[in-house]
Amino acid sequence: MNIIYILDLVGTAAFAASGAWVGVRKHMDLFGVLVLGVVTAVGGGTLRDLLLGDIPPFSLNDENYICIALAVSLIVFANRNRFAVFEKPLLYFDAVGLGTFVVIGATKALDFQLGWLGAVLMGVMTGTAGGVIRDVLANQVPLILRREIYASACVAGGTLLVALEQFGTARPVAALVAAGTVIVVRLLAIRYDWALPKS
Amino acid sequence: MNIIYILDLVGTAAFAASGAWVGVRKHMDLFGVLVLGVVTAVGGGTLRDLLLGDIPPFSLNDENYICIALAVSLIVFANRNRFAVFEKPLLYFDAVGLGTFVVIGATKALDFQLGWLGAVLMGVMTGTAGGVIRDVLANQVPLILRREIYASACVAGGTLLVALEQFGTARPVAALVAAGTVIVVRLLAIRYDWALPKS
Amino acid sequence: MNIIYILDLVGTAAFAASGAWVGVRKHMDLFGVLVLGVVTAVGGGTLRDLLLGDIPPFSLNDENYICIALAVSLIVFANRNRFAVFEKPLLYFDAVGLGTFVVIGATKALDFQLGWLGAVLMGVMTGTAGGVIRDVLANQVPLILRREIYASACVAGGTLLVALEQFGTARPVAALVAAGTVIVVRLLAIRYDWALPKS
Repeated sequence: MNIIYILDLVGTAAFAASGAWVGVRKHMDLFGVLVLGVVTAVGGGTLRDLLLGDIPPFSLNDENYICIALAVSLIVFANRNRFAVFEKPLLYFDAVGLGTFVVIGATKALDFQLGWLGAVLMGVMTGTAGGVIRDVLANQVPLILRREIYASACVAGGTLLVALEQFGTARPVAALVAAGTVIVVRLLAIRYDWALPKS
Repeated sequence: MNIIYILDLVGTAAFAASGAWVGVRKHMDLFGVLVLGVVTAVGGGTLRDLLLGDIPPFSLNDENYICIALAVSLIVFANRNRFAVFEKPLLYFDAVGLGTFVVIGATKALDFQLGWLGAVLMGVMTGTAGGVIRDVLANQVPLILRREIYASACVAGGTLLVALEQFGTARPVAALVAAGTVIVVRLLAIRYDWALPKS
Repeated sequence: MNIIYILDLVGTAAFAASGAWVGVRKHMDLFGVLVLGVVTAVGGGTLRDLLLGDIPPFSLNDENYICIALAVSLIVFANRNRFAVFEKPLLYFDAVGLGTFVVIGATKALDFQLGWLGAVLMGVMTGTAGGVIRDVLANQVPLILRREIYASACVAGGTLLVALEQFGTARPVAALVAAGTVIVVRLLAIRYDWALPKS
């Protein structure tokens, strides 16, 4: 699906920008900013491919992903003194990426014959593991484990996708509905500052 | 071996509880607690399967493991205000899990034609890597690298298993003796507060 | 190539020493020091092999690597009170290891049909990921992401290797020139305290 591929690249760019920006705020040098950008953008999908046995992973098979991630990270680094104004708008692209990544991860897992639980997990992991690795490298407790509804949007979208496929919905429709759910939940969560119960 | 499978699930539950409990003490939200529970329970074996090339890993092949880990983590989260009293008894189940994991990891590595050193390493990794990932996600130096005899129990058990197999001992006997060694050393270490030399 | 194998083992020893030394300075116990030594020495190449699908990875196929890493780490631990004087000379061996690792990683990636970008990345990762894992386990932001020219030496060497292969240079020559470049840039960077632009 061509539209999925384009959304995937948009998400890759948004994730790379968020990763590179963490690198900038952590006072990393150019190399660190590039690494954080790339790892945030392709880390989740690469881990998924390792677990599914699709080797080499998508990120080494199609160099567009890493090229985009490197280019965006470079732009963020070059504009690090005025990037703060883009933080808010970036969240919208980030939400689009999140929805796309979850759907790609869950459908790929189903294609690899995983059960429904495994498919939801792979969807959530595709959407979130890059950010987790980013935070581990930046030496902070991953944001997603602490106070964001981010993960719940992924769980909802992944579950919906698997359920729709179970009921025989055509994949493009299932993908669209599931990705849309992730994006809407995510944006509502930002708007109304939703959070999960905390310990 | 059916008994090994049951012990494996018991260990999975115990490891999940210990992981979820770290999440609670680190004030993570529900998602974070679930992630820490699952990762602690299946992280070591999953990493082993990635390295041995047994893909998809056990944790995606047999969803019982992740179901149990999720359920236990949910229970820990729901009872987070009174879970502290279970910390001590949990250590016994944790020791059982440790012994089982080490034996499963080392025997699997031997079945995959690894040498004796690789087999011991895979045993130790199966028993310990989940806890290491848990601590990395919780942004603390892994406990096992600092002051626990935990690892030595694994090394002893893994070495014993490989040695017994080398001398032609029947696998069930070797597994039982090795797992028992891990459990006994672990419990004695807790009882007498043993530690390795430190730097 | 026999000379490459010897240089590889030299680099493994140097990387293990640097990893074990971080463990000592972080007051880890014996097990922690051994883990940090081994992970620093073989982590980069193992991750590369996972991504390329060369399973089991080199570190489990040829136990010499892990034997050397364990032995060196043990020696560092045993001599922890007088090891500080070796820190400087160690940097020379470390540079040799870095050059060798980058060249081995990039050429292996080319042999596995990766594109030029992937090959450079695999070279850089082979040289640097072990140190990144070491720093994550020691709960510090990886040094390489913050202020070292270390990574640039790898990028330069990896790019040079891929370019030379592209132009049909015989592999031994390309390997020698690329590894030499990494080593020289690395040593000059230490000598003149070079650094990348920072954010």
